[in-house]
Amino acid sequence: MKRKNLPTIVYPGSFDPITDGHIDIILRARKLFSSLVVAVYNDPHRTYFFPIDERIALIKSVLQEKNITDVTVDSFEGELLVAYCKRNGFTVIIRGLRVITDFEYEFLLDHSNQKLMPEVQTIFLMTNHDYSYISSSMVREVAQLEGDVSPFVPLCVQKAIAKKLQHLQVF
Amino acid sequence: MKRKNLPTIVYPGSFDPITDGHIDIILRARKLFSSLVVAVYNDPHRTYFFPIDERIALIKSVLQEKNITDVTVDSFEGELLVAYCKRNGFTVIIRGLRVITDFEYEFLLDHSNQKLMPEVQTIFLMTNHDYSYISSSMVREVAQLEGDVSPFVPLCVQKAIAKKLQHLQVF
Amino acid sequence: MKRKNLPTIVYPGSFDPITDGHIDIILRARKLFSSLVVAVYNDPHRTYFFPIDERIALIKSVLQEKNITDVTVDSFEGELLVAYCKRNGFTVIIRGLRVITDFEYEFLLDHSNQKLMPEVQTIFLMTNHDYSYISSSMVREVAQLEGDVSPFVPLCVQKAIAKKLQHLQVF
Amino acid sequence: MKRKNLPTIVYPGSFDPITDGHIDIILRARKLFSSLVVAVYNDPHRTYFFPIDERIALIKSVLQEKNITDVTVDSFEGELLVAYCKRNGFTVIIRGLRVITDFEYEFLLDHSNQKLMPEVQTIFLMTNHDYSYISSSMVREVAQLEGDVSPFVPLCVQKAIAKKLQHLQVF
Amino acid sequence: MKRKNLPTIVYPGSFDPITDGHIDIILRARKLFSSLVVAVYNDPHRTYFFPIDERIALIKSVLQEKNITDVTVDSFEGELLVAYCKRNGFTVIIRGLRVITDFEYEFLLDHSNQKLMPEVQTIFLMTNHDYSYISSSMVREVAQLEGDVSPFVPLCVQKAIAKKLQHLQVF
Amino acid sequence: MKRKNLPTIVYPGSFDPITDGHIDIILRARKLFSSLVVAVYNDPHRTYFFPIDERIALIKSVLQEKNITDVTVDSFEGELLVAYCKRNGFTVIIRGLRVITDFEYEFLLDHSNQKLMPEVQTIFLMTNHDYSYISSSMVREVAQLEGDVSPFVPLCVQKAIAKKLQHLQVF
Repeated sequence: MKRKNLPTIVYPGSFDPITDGHIDIILRARKLFSSLVVAVYNDPHRTYFFPIDERIALIKSVLQEKNITDVTVDSFEGELLVAYCKRNGFTVIIRGLRVITDFEYEFLLDHSNQKLMPEVQTIFLMTNHDYSYISSSMVREVAQLEGDVSPFVPLCVQKAIAKKLQHLQVF
Repeated sequence: MKRKNLPTIVYPGSFDPITDGHIDIILRARKLFSSLVVAVYNDPHRTYFFPIDERIALIKSVLQEKNITDVTVDSFEGELLVAYCKRNGFTVIIRGLRVITDFEYEFLLDHSNQKLMPEVQTIFLMTNHDYSYISSSMVREVAQLEGDVSPFVPLCVQKAIAKKLQHLQVF
Repeated sequence: MKRKNLPTIVYPGSFDPITDGHIDIILRARKLFSSLVVAVYNDPHRTYFFPIDERIALIKSVLQEKNITDVTVDSFEGELLVAYCKRNGFTVIIRGLRVITDFEYEFLLDHSNQKLMPEVQTIFLMTNHDYSYISSSMVREVAQLEGDVSPFVPLCVQKAIAKKLQHLQVF
Repeated sequence: MKRKNLPTIVYPGSFDPITDGHIDIILRARKLFSSLVVAVYNDPHRTYFFPIDERIALIKSVLQEKNITDVTVDSFEGELLVAYCKRNGFTVIIRGLRVITDFEYEFLLDHSNQKLMPEVQTIFLMTNHDYSYISSSMVREVAQLEGDVSPFVPLCVQKAIAKKLQHLQVF
Repeated sequence: MKRKNLPTIVYPGSFDPITDGHIDIILRARKLFSSLVVAVYNDPHRTYFFPIDERIALIKSVLQEKNITDVTVDSFEGELLVAYCKRNGFTVIIRGLRVITDFEYEFLLDHSNQKLMPEVQTIFLMTNHDYSYISSSMVREVAQLEGDVSPFVPLCVQKAIAKKLQHLQVF
Repeated sequence: MKRKNLPTIVYPGSFDPITDGHIDIILRARKLFSSLVVAVYNDPHRTYFFPIDERIALIKSVLQEKNITDVTVDSFEGELLVAYCKRNGFTVIIRGLRVITDFEYEFLLDHSNQKLMPEVQTIFLMTNHDYSYISSSMVREVAQLEGDVSPFVPLCVQKAIAKKLQHLQVF
């Protein structure tokens, strides 16, 4: 069987912040495909807990901590995901599925993406059992109520959250 | 980036019979991975519409009709899917998701597979919008009530169904 | 606005037996449409609690008890619902929705019917709150364990169930 | 069978903007009932992409383009849908169902409407397979990210969106 | 069998306002456990229809009206529910389940609570059939559109809502 | 606060066989209530993997292994669960919830039980995260395909399964 030209895969999201669940998807996706890009989405009209440059920096820290050198981090804003993919020649998107609500949202998104750009495919991984209840919004909520986020995010993110909260209280 | 040793992917199922929905998953999966095996499951205690050899032959006919030469057809029985994968060195399973009920069943299956054989991963494709309502059981039901199955299965399967039904009525 | 030629509506099902939930759908559907046919499906390969003639007779008794004279009872077997509709010139099907599982099943059925016979439409009523947990299979299960079915079915059905159970025990 | 006095049916929504999915429901509903009113809801405390007069005008344009003369467009604000129906003598509401989340929302709404105004009924149509992933909010999101909305809305709405976006950028 | 030291149970929520559904859960929970605390959550960054002191007062009025003297009302803010429980030595939380969406949200919450504080358990009651479509947000919406809220909340809450709306219109 | 007369709680099921998930529910339920009965249901028309006496014996072995002396094991057949409860003066049922499908089934069951016997309440525990994918039917399927069931059931059940399978092969 002749070796095919295999696609680069894109893992898009807000990553506000990156969680142990996201990291699990990254680790598993890079075993499956020759090349992986984590694409951080930024909506200029939305207020994030971490601004875009900090979200990117945290993902890069995590990859460095784990000695992962074959995953690229990129960002995009003001355009649809399918437009971003087209512009970069990406043809495969990967997404994590945790719960039914995720499934239904992704189902609708996948079908409108199929209409907008049939050449882009989306593949899904079930979030690993140990991380299936973790979401960035839950992490932010626990953090803001001074709960312990260590079961949900890696050390560098825990530190960044602590620093951010301290900063918010001073000013 | 150095070329990694990419995994062979397994697409398991009963395929009783293969439908346009299955074919769509096969066509999309082979673009994503270097190597694909369609693995037909046979439960010796269950009665099928098509016996195992006919189910395999129909899949091979479909692949031949479409000039697909880089997909292998295999079968297994009397063992768990994860055991079959282990025995053959397969580490990635692909499955189609059509509806919520599929999602939930696959969610439970994926998590028990993670426990039984952590080194095997399952990835999912949403069934293409045009085929998302098709299932083998629906095809069999329509066929047995003399409905038209041409919107759901390829020509060679239509012919095999017609022949099988004629045979059932004669005897 | 000129009077249009309004369609006859079909309410299909196994009705094994008819329940207060079915009766509620019939009463509400006949207010909405000029003409309503209750179509009892019979699968000759399946064992029913009440055979087809008794299921039809029970529906007719219920309609008579309630002085409903503008609803017709019919039956069909060995053909798809869409084929039955085509043969009779029926273009609208009505179905009750109780729960998510109903929704998903009907969603798949509706989309395959759209493919098989685009001129037939299906409309849905949410089962009335008071009856939303009732199903024929639940009624049969309660009956066979000698539970009280009076909160779920009308009097004539209660009597028919009692008679049937007595008969089953004698022989 | 004597001709009954059949009800006028109301199709309520925000229609911000009307999509191909809404149009499909309108076309199918007018075949089922003698009289159909599209009722545009306006919440004075909410910011819409198109204000109420433009949403109404777009629906009227669509109906005119398709030569539909037997569908009326109306609007209501500051009152419950059931109150609006009561005031106008409307007794039947029609809604489209696309996904499980729709079903659940409508299920709760239908049951509280049954309590508030038992004489009003709601009937449901499954959104046609080809349009089942389309929503007004998805159209607005695609539009604002300069994506192509032509697979989702008719021409007059495409033009209105383009004009609106140009206007938003100038000021 | 020796008498065990049975736990105090906490029923947390926003109660903005308390509804007949909440009251049903309280009445059923107090039969099951020796001691029950209704814990009103206040998020200082959120705008409520009734401020925290009024929400507490309404719950107390309802309990008084029904001569319930063995249920305590408490409140908490600026901390996670599990932290509030730990601080007070509470080890059991009770929650009502109405619909699938409730289930999924509670499923995620329960699993992150298990991680944050394994010694706290959550038990669930299905909301009684008669109240399963009622939510505080639905009550507020009906009230603000001048609908009748008497099928959903007790008399003292109806009066408080009427007074609040009058006050909002005057100023 | 005066000590109330607290209810005995019933945990019903087929337990064919008891799994780590069931055991988790038993351990948590006995902390919540003064008295717990595990009630094994037997349907004389159904074929079980373990007959009723073996299912009871396995539960007793598990309780003994864990030194649990305050949980009783009972069985019932040929009557509804609510009838069994009534006959024994039990007023509280406990059930585990794993997934959406569980929720929906229990929702319908709970509402018909409310109708048949309003004085019996059902409370629910979410199955612990670590056990949420385990079911008796999955255990039987894995066992029959010679898979490893040790991650799902306690040692005494593993041994009983091995013995049963050996016995089945000899005869």
